Amino acid sequence: MKIELENVRPMDIEKRSFEIITQELKESGKEIDEKLAPIIKRVIHTTADFEFADLLAFSDDVVEKTMEAIKNGAIIVTDTKMAMAGINKKVIHKYGGDVYCFISDDDVAKEAKERGVTRASVSMEKAAKMGKDVIFAIGNAPTALVRLYEMINEGKVDPKLIIGVPVGFVNVVQSKELIMDTNVPYIIAKGRKGGSTIAACICNAILYMMDETRGM
Amino acid sequence: MKIELENVRPMDIEKRSFEIITQELKESGKEIDEKLAPIIKRVIHTTADFEFADLLAFSDDVVEKTMEAIKNGAIIVTDTKMAMAGINKKVIHKYGGDVYCFISDDDVAKEAKERGVTRASVSMEKAAKMGKDVIFAIGNAPTALVRLYEMINEGKVDPKLIIGVPVGFVNVVQSKELIMDTNVPYIIAKGRKGGSTIAACICNAILYMMDETRGM
Repeated sequence: MKIELENVRPMDIEKRSFEIITQELKESGKEIDEKLAPIIKRVIHTTADFEFADLLAFSDDVVEKTMEAIKNGAIIVTDTKMAMAGINKKVIHKYGGDVYCFISDDDVAKEAKERGVTRASVSMEKAAKMGKDVIFAIGNAPTALVRLYEMINEGKVDPKLIIGVPVGFVNVVQSKELIMDTNVPYIIAKGRKGGSTIAACICNAILYMMDETRGM
Repeated sequence: MKIELENVRPMDIEKRSFEIITQELKESGKEIDEKLAPIIKRVIHTTADFEFADLLAFSDDVVEKTMEAIKNGAIIVTDTKMAMAGINKKVIHKYGGDVYCFISDDDVAKEAKERGVTRASVSMEKAAKMGKDVIFAIGNAPTALVRLYEMINEGKVDPKLIIGVPVGFVNVVQSKELIMDTNVPYIIAKGRKGGSTIAACICNAILYMMDETRGM
């Protein structure tokens, strides 16, 4: 068996990948908004799944609004340790924000058990109680989105952005539709697909756009 | 807009999801090996992408061999912090193993820079030098798989299992083919698709099969 490797320098792998993605998107005839392209392409880079070009949905001016929030010190709250681990913290730290995940906290686990709700749901309440500007990056738990939807309607939380990309089969599609039915800025992957890597990579796409030290 | 949520108790969400996956696999007429079904279904659970039923490739008796290795204290080495964060450590700790990722180690970064290779590649060398039985779970860097392939042929490493599921566009397909061309036990996602969540979830699928305290 003869397997030919493409000779690309480590520092050029990401650039080359984005060239391939740009080329294949063009060949497929998909029109994508230039301002949203860095996000859409990075999600495809993270998944090798071009279907995301159709699945991703954005509220108006979401990139500008999110950048503004980060510049004003907004924090990011995720629903999984994996998503938290995948977010590049450099830019958010620069502006005084940070990345949090409360899913494994003892008090969250205890309260979730007592009330018969998910830890993800309680971890959203804990985030809301911080009294900070929050960008929610949800890659796993539809119950996190459902609880955010309820709290938005109850006036208990006013997210700067909801990245709603849980993956799965039970209430995932519906939970995303609920968020799109609010007035909160959102980036949603419609349908069943999503995941923690995607939640992290959407955060990174926006953070990288704000990082003047990055070449691309 | 009327959005109807399915009423499923938190503890039953995973079970209900697997029922839906099992049902839809059946309806699609795909035949899957009973022994491999927990892995295939968990990858679909993690991605909502049924294409993985076709993409996943397994060497002979890979589940039995991996369980044996874990029982004998094998460690898991990942190529990303995200994959490490996503692995449930309960069973591997029980048998004396642990989960490692060297990608962010200062010595790895330094050496990679000096040699003009990827950190992923150097992190594989560091793992091999531990002198332990290693299960490699690679969800991101094809260069990790390429380096493992070279080291296998040089007699420098003898992995108990390679989970080869990097995602992407540069040498990803080839790196997976290289691993399938060795005599090392493997679980591979053919093609471009994969990711850290998938690497972690394949580990978890096997670890959960070994956990007698789990109901499913």
